[in-house]
Amino acid sequence: MTIKTPTLLLDEALCRKNIREMTEKTAAMGLTFRPHFKTHQSHKTGRWFREYGVDKICVSSVRMAEYFCKDGWEDILIAFPYNPMEVNEIRDLAGKTNLGLCITGPQSAELLARDCNFKVSVMIKTDTGYGRSGSLWDNSAGLRETYRILKQCKYISIKGLMTHSGNTYKAKSREEIQKISELSAERLIYARDSIGDPSLLLSVGDTPSASVCNEFKGIDELRPGNFVFYDLMQYFIGSCRLDQVAVRVACPVADISSDRSRVVIYGGGIHFSKEYAETEGRKVYGLLIGKNGDGRALPSEPVYLESLSQEHGILRYSDGVPGSVSIGDLVYIIPVHSCLTAEALGGYLLGDGTRADHMQIKYRDTL
Amino acid sequence: MTIKTPTLLLDEALCRKNIREMTEKTAAMGLTFRPHFKTHQSHKTGRWFREYGVDKICVSSVRMAEYFCKDGWEDILIAFPYNPMEVNEIRDLAGKTNLGLCITGPQSAELLARDCNFKVSVMIKTDTGYGRSGSLWDNSAGLRETYRILKQCKYISIKGLMTHSGNTYKAKSREEIQKISELSAERLIYARDSIGDPSLLLSVGDTPSASVCNEFKGIDELRPGNFVFYDLMQYFIGSCRLDQVAVRVACPVADISSDRSRVVIYGGGIHFSKEYAETEGRKVYGLLIGKNGDGRALPSEPVYLESLSQEHGILRYSDGVPGSVSIGDLVYIIPVHSCLTAEALGGYLLGDGTRADHMQIKYRDTL
Repeated sequence: MTIKTPTLLLDEALCRKNIREMTEKTAAMGLTFRPHFKTHQSHKTGRWFREYGVDKICVSSVRMAEYFCKDGWEDILIAFPYNPMEVNEIRDLAGKTNLGLCITGPQSAELLARDCNFKVSVMIKTDTGYGRSGSLWDNSAGLRETYRILKQCKYISIKGLMTHSGNTYKAKSREEIQKISELSAERLIYARDSIGDPSLLLSVGDTPSASVCNEFKGIDELRPGNFVFYDLMQYFIGSCRLDQVAVRVACPVADISSDRSRVVIYGGGIHFSKEYAETEGRKVYGLLIGKNGDGRALPSEPVYLESLSQEHGILRYSDGVPGSVSIGDLVYIIPVHSCLTAEALGGYLLGDGTRADHMQIKYRDTL
Repeated sequence: MTIKTPTLLLDEALCRKNIREMTEKTAAMGLTFRPHFKTHQSHKTGRWFREYGVDKICVSSVRMAEYFCKDGWEDILIAFPYNPMEVNEIRDLAGKTNLGLCITGPQSAELLARDCNFKVSVMIKTDTGYGRSGSLWDNSAGLRETYRILKQCKYISIKGLMTHSGNTYKAKSREEIQKISELSAERLIYARDSIGDPSLLLSVGDTPSASVCNEFKGIDELRPGNFVFYDLMQYFIGSCRLDQVAVRVACPVADISSDRSRVVIYGGGIHFSKEYAETEGRKVYGLLIGKNGDGRALPSEPVYLESLSQEHGILRYSDGVPGSVSIGDLVYIIPVHSCLTAEALGGYLLGDGTRADHMQIKYRDTL
């Protein structure tokens, strides 16, 4: 097989190792492991999880829940605020799998209670500091009201409180991740105390904490997603080593400009996504990790992808381009954010030459 | 029809107006019009161009050339450096359409001359200041060498010199765009003079210059692409008015946090792309332009999409959220970069409820 255009390579052995280690780690801590499947969005990769005993998952859309339900997953939490527009699809799903929904506050609770004539479990989304969605952890009145509304609907079983500490992505050290994680857990416990139902389970999920922390006091369930592949951003945060990253984008070299220390690759924003990370005060979109069959060779000095247009990317060398790089070579690049890169490329090439699937979002069939 | 998830809306009338105006403008200037189809990547939109007499196009990949060749386009320039890995696909294409390739320098020319046993025309890519790919405009020796190598191959007809002044995207005013465009034309003329073949035609292409400038002295062909839809970035640059932007992303409201002046929408990086623009010193990912059926209503103060995660976006209001916004409402947002948003969403919904196609990149069938 010949790679001719930007292609996402997935190293099955590294990926399985990431899955196995996180499975063992959560088990050792006595936590329920409910990995988020939004990173890989792949039946094939999902089946690897199953081999390690995982039977509960998280997804980020109704569509994704449908995708994994089709592959036999029987306990699926849609970790995205309940979208009343999709109630018909949700009702169908609830008849096929043990479905969990995420409710963000009283208005969200009322909409679900109004529509709900199907059995479903609910997690109350709590904002413990990230500031994206959910009821603020110290908004006790709001949390109690949400709980009260949900409780009145006989179809709904309130299962617990969930939070996503996405603020760990901005952490600069492992200590900072640890602190955010601890504070988040304390706040989630505080939120449950305000509601006053000790049977509610507490669920947290983000790859930096799941990777770095060895204790989640008071927490019942962990929902990381990105760890399945990791990426350059997680490496910069300190969640992983480079040799744990299980994906690379293989890109043909399109042009070389040695006097400007630059290599233009066939690989742009539509392949990598335009997500960037910052290192040494500059934006980077990926890290070169070898060429022509050797996708593990770090150059002595890091060579970053410094800019992306629609189909082009520019690799910046520090001083000239090595004479060994030619137009038509394949270079391998660790992407900044593997979730978005996988979404952009829509499929994986495995080492044995077979492909792994990736759900295609695109237009939903209800249109 | 009900929109339930993030959906790209295309206003056919506005889009046709953009096409018609650019067609008339280039005709009035006596220029050949070769629009870039990488923005829409759509047979349907391409056919609208045909209705206005357009018969030459640009694309940014071999795959895209195949896509438009299938729809009957007979003059296609692949405005991306020649990728020797795809020579077989290129050969096939060259048998079906009048194909143009882009050659960046001596190495690129040698690779094509080595592989070329099919009739093809070539544009020599010249870097007139953008700094992405191509031979530098004042590298006379390099340009002459490129020309010489190509000339020796009997299958290749050297058609001209092309440049993309992508640096206009960083311009802060119409005057600056004008200056970049003039300088670029002068440099392209200089490059042709160094080669010494006055029969070479000169081709330039970027939406800011094509929109703003009324003269392209010495230039033969114009290749803008984005103007077909325009977007928030072009509005900020000064290439268009907001009422010329032909696309919006319709997104369900997922959560509201009035005390923090924020609305969480179902619509994230996988829908908009993570491209941002800067205005008033902050990054923005889109501009709110109305709700529930009225996709043209600017709020009295601009409300921007201030952050994006994978599936969520956050709209930031200046002071509280209007009581009229509810979970389950649809809001309309002008994306920052319509090319990448169209790529991410992979299809269009037209006002009459029908869909328009978008090429799906994903894995090429050669894998």
